[in-house]
Amino acid sequence: MMEMTVHTAAPYQILIARGCLDETGPRAAKLFRANGKAMIVSDSNVMPLYGDRVEKSLEAAGITCFRFTFPAGETSKRLSVIEQIYAALAENRFTRTDFLVALGGGVVGDMTGFAAATFLRGMGFVQIPTSLLAQVDSSVGGKTGVDLPQGKNLVGAFHQPRLVLIDPDTLGTLPPRYFADGMGEVIKYGCIRSRNLFDSLAQSRLTPDHPDLERVLYECVDIKRIVVEHDEHDTGERMILNFGHTLGHALEKLHNFEVLSHGEAVGIGMVLVTEAAERNGITPSGTAARIRSLLTLYGLPTEDPSIPLSDAVAATSVDKKSLGGSLNLVVLSELGNAVVHPVPKAEVPAFFGEGTR
Amino acid sequence: MMEMTVHTAAPYQILIARGCLDETGPRAAKLFRANGKAMIVSDSNVMPLYGDRVEKSLEAAGITCFRFTFPAGETSKRLSVIEQIYAALAENRFTRTDFLVALGGGVVGDMTGFAAATFLRGMGFVQIPTSLLAQVDSSVGGKTGVDLPQGKNLVGAFHQPRLVLIDPDTLGTLPPRYFADGMGEVIKYGCIRSRNLFDSLAQSRLTPDHPDLERVLYECVDIKRIVVEHDEHDTGERMILNFGHTLGHALEKLHNFEVLSHGEAVGIGMVLVTEAAERNGITPSGTAARIRSLLTLYGLPTEDPSIPLSDAVAATSVDKKSLGGSLNLVVLSELGNAVVHPVPKAEVPAFFGEGTR
Repeated sequence: MMEMTVHTAAPYQILIARGCLDETGPRAAKLFRANGKAMIVSDSNVMPLYGDRVEKSLEAAGITCFRFTFPAGETSKRLSVIEQIYAALAENRFTRTDFLVALGGGVVGDMTGFAAATFLRGMGFVQIPTSLLAQVDSSVGGKTGVDLPQGKNLVGAFHQPRLVLIDPDTLGTLPPRYFADGMGEVIKYGCIRSRNLFDSLAQSRLTPDHPDLERVLYECVDIKRIVVEHDEHDTGERMILNFGHTLGHALEKLHNFEVLSHGEAVGIGMVLVTEAAERNGITPSGTAARIRSLLTLYGLPTEDPSIPLSDAVAATSVDKKSLGGSLNLVVLSELGNAVVHPVPKAEVPAFFGEGTR
Repeated sequence: MMEMTVHTAAPYQILIARGCLDETGPRAAKLFRANGKAMIVSDSNVMPLYGDRVEKSLEAAGITCFRFTFPAGETSKRLSVIEQIYAALAENRFTRTDFLVALGGGVVGDMTGFAAATFLRGMGFVQIPTSLLAQVDSSVGGKTGVDLPQGKNLVGAFHQPRLVLIDPDTLGTLPPRYFADGMGEVIKYGCIRSRNLFDSLAQSRLTPDHPDLERVLYECVDIKRIVVEHDEHDTGERMILNFGHTLGHALEKLHNFEVLSHGEAVGIGMVLVTEAAERNGITPSGTAARIRSLLTLYGLPTEDPSIPLSDAVAATSVDKKSLGGSLNLVVLSELGNAVVHPVPKAEVPAFFGEGTR
């Protein structure tokens, strides 16, 4: 069992252990009032798999459980579903000392966190991420939110969970494409902060039953923890976590959040920005090729032939990372170290070598 | 001109001065980036009165203005209107360094603040309260939010403004009933923190052109400032600001937010809770009578004959102030000093003397 504390304004624990779903009740009972209520929020894929176990653990600890299940998929990540969660909380008379449990992947975590951030102006919530992507990324750091028709994650709040329970056993039930999806972010952590992690991922192919899995999860979450502690509200250093995301988000958007998974899009985004950074003399040449080859090992695409680069670049302009007149791109000074590189908006197309490709 | 600084996590200035609407541009230019954008959010009553002046002041300071106007009234305070504000911000490509301006009463301020709190996970906003109620209460303290079909202000966020501009001249255009509405909260400040204020309100009837108006506004805002600084996120001391609100909100709700204004409902709530507190030996007898007589001087009702007290008491149970198993009622230990008095939920009807009235 591995455990760490995230020192944000309100500190919280992250537990990484096979089987720790069954710890939900005892752990939550230490954080919330006795005889309180919990709303378990999950989707139509995950609730049938783990809802009973989590509920049983909570009820055994004296917590009364309610459930809210919505259809699985990114298209549920919208305000109308948040309104339904609010209604369930209001109708069951939840108060500020009750809490929510986000049981599922990134969509479940983002939405449950946003509902918790805003119902009664803020309630506590527990993250139980069940996808690799959510375990290494979205469940830690307090970013919550929903999509708008105009763009992904345009609405949200910073709201830290009170507890994160990461049970690697849940990854065994993931379809292979979803495991690969998370590997996009795992590879990202290697790129931005750990050359050792990057190399180890290349030496032995990680799988849900691999003995190194818990260590890799710990290393990824620990990188994120340190970055988040330094920059809880995403005003500077935290930007490096967005390596591959600016173009990745744009690609996801141009496909209407279909076709490409988040990890797939981020993988392609990492390749595209690194190719551009190589041409601009920022990243040593050969780096994009190494990233491409690692993505391929994990079954992830390295390009999107259906969308011209110019369209993806144009689609970045409503991105949250576009502060004022320049776009803050994250690039690698070398494999294992990311830096923020602001590019004036007018120069963005030239940075990506448009017309020369 | 009077000015004060609110020392919340991010401090901000409050300016109280006749004519200070025209200071919006120069003041905002010091806080936000040069050549930025502002979305002026207002309602169908206030935008035609002051929208041009505020926009002119902002444009003269180099800020590009956009406008969002919604139909005046509490029924607009809902998520679907927030969604329209999000759409206007996204379509006009607002970034985190742009800002919103809340120009209007409490509904405008609450909604604009909530949109600012959640668009791109948080943008800055300026409060320009134009009703007495908003000037002395809702524009200060960072409470933002919307109503749900299940209750008032059930959704929201704590999000402090970057600046508050209080122009008492705007009160001259208010219908008399709206001025009286705000007087409900002004009288509340006297009740909870200043016997002197309470007495001065009784000695000379305050009007929009009264020479004491700015001083009274300053005194009310200063009381709120001190309480908010001690308890930014409403976990303790700030509850005293809710004097009269528990039953007041319940009455508003039972009337579907029609019939009674907020200040009228709070006034009745102050009388009801003080009568109960007198019967329970907490408040000196005769206090409710003094409050009743001051409310009457300002044209405010002191009872609601259409709703039985038992119905109002029953309607308090989804109130945010009901923490767990007890209801935190705010009562006066004497005129000019409020205290929080928790009453176990089962004993609430008896506290209000149900069946004995």
